[in-house]
Amino acid sequence: MSTIKDVAKEAGVSIATVSRVVNKSPKASKSAVESVTNAMKKLGYRPNEAARALVSQKSNIIGVVVSDVSDPFFGLLIKTVDKIAYQHGKHTLIGNGYHQAEQERDAIELLIKNRCDALIVHAKALTDEELIHYAKEVKGMVLINRFIEQIADRCISLDNYQGAYIATEHLIKNGHKNIACIASNHLIEDADARKSGYLAALKDHDIILSEDYIAAATPDAEGGIEAMNNLLEKDINITAVLAYNDYMAAGALSVAQEKGIQVPKQLSIVGFDNGLIARYLYPRLTTVNYPIELMAEKAAILALKRANNETVETQQLNFSPTIVLRDSACKANN
Amino acid sequence: MSTIKDVAKEAGVSIATVSRVVNKSPKASKSAVESVTNAMKKLGYRPNEAARALVSQKSNIIGVVVSDVSDPFFGLLIKTVDKIAYQHGKHTLIGNGYHQAEQERDAIELLIKNRCDALIVHAKALTDEELIHYAKEVKGMVLINRFIEQIADRCISLDNYQGAYIATEHLIKNGHKNIACIASNHLIEDADARKSGYLAALKDHDIILSEDYIAAATPDAEGGIEAMNNLLEKDINITAVLAYNDYMAAGALSVAQEKGIQVPKQLSIVGFDNGLIARYLYPRLTTVNYPIELMAEKAAILALKRANNETVETQQLNFSPTIVLRDSACKANN
Repeated sequence: MSTIKDVAKEAGVSIATVSRVVNKSPKASKSAVESVTNAMKKLGYRPNEAARALVSQKSNIIGVVVSDVSDPFFGLLIKTVDKIAYQHGKHTLIGNGYHQAEQERDAIELLIKNRCDALIVHAKALTDEELIHYAKEVKGMVLINRFIEQIADRCISLDNYQGAYIATEHLIKNGHKNIACIASNHLIEDADARKSGYLAALKDHDIILSEDYIAAATPDAEGGIEAMNNLLEKDINITAVLAYNDYMAAGALSVAQEKGIQVPKQLSIVGFDNGLIARYLYPRLTTVNYPIELMAEKAAILALKRANNETVETQQLNFSPTIVLRDSACKANN
Repeated sequence: MSTIKDVAKEAGVSIATVSRVVNKSPKASKSAVESVTNAMKKLGYRPNEAARALVSQKSNIIGVVVSDVSDPFFGLLIKTVDKIAYQHGKHTLIGNGYHQAEQERDAIELLIKNRCDALIVHAKALTDEELIHYAKEVKGMVLINRFIEQIADRCISLDNYQGAYIATEHLIKNGHKNIACIASNHLIEDADARKSGYLAALKDHDIILSEDYIAAATPDAEGGIEAMNNLLEKDINITAVLAYNDYMAAGALSVAQEKGIQVPKQLSIVGFDNGLIARYLYPRLTTVNYPIELMAEKAAILALKRANNETVETQQLNFSPTIVLRDSACKANN
C-alpha cells in the first residue's frame, strides 16, 4: 500500500501539504488539492485511520459489547447501533462477553484502547462497581439492559418485572389459575425480575401456588425442554406456562408436541423477547415484546451525545414491555 | 483519560522510558518496568491502540463484511471469525453490505482505512473485477461464499449446485416426481446455482416438468409464502417442494398449515442452510447443511496467514453440502 511520502513525491509537494489536503485544512491551495487528489487516486492511497485517530484522540468507532453476536437478539442490537453509527459517519466495533466477567472486561478494555468515541455495553457478569468505574472513565459509555442507580442517566433498561407481570395477568384474565413458570437459572437480575413479576401477578389475583410450579434451567431451548419435562413429572395440574424467553418456550412447545399435549387448547404457552423464532414456531408464539431496536437506538444516540459533550435532556430510559398476542395462548377450559 | 506524559511524570521517568515499558522493549530496566507499571495502574492509563497501529502499520483487527449482521447466518459467521481472532489476540470490526454494491464498497473501504490485518468479505453485489482489484491491494483479503477464478486461492465457497442436486435427488429417491422449486429472485450466483442443481437432478432421473413448477420470489419467509401460493394456484400436482432457503421453506410451511395441507404426509418440504429456525419449525425442517462455521474458520485462518506472509498450503476451499434429515420430508404416497 502506498504511503503519504509516495503521494507527496507523485504530486510534487511536501508531506505537510498532503496532510493538509487529507485533513481538509483551509490552508491547502486549490492547486495543491487538485494535484494531491490526483496523486492519491493514481496510487490508490488511503489516509491512515490510525494516524487520524492519534492526532484527534478520537476514533470514528462506536464500540458495542454484547453477550453473543450469534444470538439474533444481539444481532438486532448491533444492527441498530450500526445504523445510527452509519448516519453519523461512524462504524461499529464489536466485542463478545459470553456472560463471563473476564471476557466482558476484556471486550470493554479493547474498545477503550481503540479510543471508541462511544461505547454501548450489554454486560451481565461484571459487578455494579466495576461498571461504575468504567462509566466514570469513559463519558460516552452507556449500559443497555441493566440498571445501576449511581449511573441511572446512562442505563437503558427494560422493566422485566412488569413484562412478566403483564404476561401472567394476561393468562389469569383468560381464566388460567394453574400457571407454571419456566425460569432461568442464570444469576442475573433479569431472571430475578421476571420470576418476581410472575409471583406478584399471582399474589395480586389471590392465586396461591406451590414452589412446584416453578422450574428453572438454562435459558435456551434445551433448558426449556428440561424444565417442561420436570413440570410434567410433578403431580400438579398445569393449564398455562410462562417461559423466561422464547427459546425456553420453544423447548416447552416441543415437549408438548412430543407428548401429544395440544397447544393452546390444553396448554397455553407464553414466551418473552418476541425474537425471530417467535413468528416461526407452531403455533406462533404469544410473547412479551422486548423493544431492543428502540432501546439500542436510544443507547447509540445517548452514547454519541455524551461522547461529544452535547447536553442531554432528561428522558425516560426505562422501557415498558407489551404483550404480543399470537396463537400459543387461549382461554382456559374451566 | 491520562496520557503518556502523566505516566512519565508520576513514575519520574522520561516518556521514552514509558514507551519502552509499554512496548515490552528489552532495553527497559526492571526498576523502570516496576515504576511505570505502578504509575499506569494508579492513573488508569492505557496504551493508545491508534499509536501502536500507526507505528507498526498494522492494526490488531480482523475486518468482516457481511450482508446483514441481524441474520443469524451472518451472526454465526462473525462469531466464528471472532473466536479465531480472539485466539490470535485480535478483534473483529464488522461492516454491513446490505446486498448493495455501494454499501459493500463503503464497508471494505472503511476496513482498509482502519488497516485491518485480515479481511473476510461476503459480498454479492460487487463485480468480480472490483473484488479482484481489492484482493490485489489487500493480501490478507479472503472471500467467503463466492468463487472468482482469478483469485481462486482465496475464495471459500460452497457448492450450491451440488446442495440443490442432492436435496432434489433425496426427494426423487423417496418416490417424488412432482417436485416444485421455490427459487430466489435475487440476481446472485447462489440463486442460479441452486436452481441449476434442481434442474440437473430432475434431468438425470428423466423427470420432465414444466416451468410452472418453479416459482421465484424474495429469499425470505414472505417470499416463501408468495411463491407457495403461486404454486398452489396453478393447475399442477405437487408432492414435494425444494425451497431456496430455510426462511422460504418456513413461508411455504405456513401456507400449507393455513390450507390444511399436511406436511410431510401430503407435501414434503426441504429447505437450504440448516439455520437456526430449521430446528424450531414444526415439523422440524429437513434441509441442506451450509457449513458456515467451518467455512468462516477456514476463511479467518487463511486471511491471517496471508496477512502475515505465511506460506499457505494448497487446500480444498470449496465445501460440499450434506442433507440433514428431519421431519418435513417423507416418502411419496404413490
